[in-house]
Amino acid sequence: MARVVVDVMLKPEILDPQGQAVANALPRLGVSDVASVRIGRRVEIDFSGEADLDRAKEIADKLLANPVIEDYTVRVEQ
Amino acid sequence: MARVVVDVMLKPEILDPQGQAVANALPRLGVSDVASVRIGRRVEIDFSGEADLDRAKEIADKLLANPVIEDYTVRVEQ
Repeated sequence: MARVVVDVMLKPEILDPQGQAVANALPRLGVSDVASVRIGRRVEIDFSGEADLDRAKEIADKLLANPVIEDYTVRVEQ
Repeated sequence: MARVVVDVMLKPEILDPQGQAVANALPRLGVSDVASVRIGRRVEIDFSGEADLDRAKEIADKLLANPVIEDYTVRVEQ
């Protein structure tokens, strides 16, 4: 079993209301040294055989990320 | 600026309908060597000063993860 992780995040220029909601709540926890919070998706793809990065990219392109507003990165995780 | 990443995933024993929906769609893409897909949240916390792992854990405990059904990991990302 080999695991490939796809991290899907909103493009930097896209407003992230979820992240801002968390950032706005931080002062109530006494947190003042956080500049920004951004929230995206982490997708763990477990391959039955070898980790197939090209296949994971294909899955990300077609099913996981919206290329208009999102970027993604793909990596093998031990 | 230092970035801490918090990855929040459902506990293994918890059903992941989002992940299953993606896994069920894979045969239509001709993908047959994927054993499972699980989807969680990736939270990027940018600290204005030094990366503060304890602080990130506190934020994860109080705002980001539901300890009943979710686990999280915290790491500094360069």
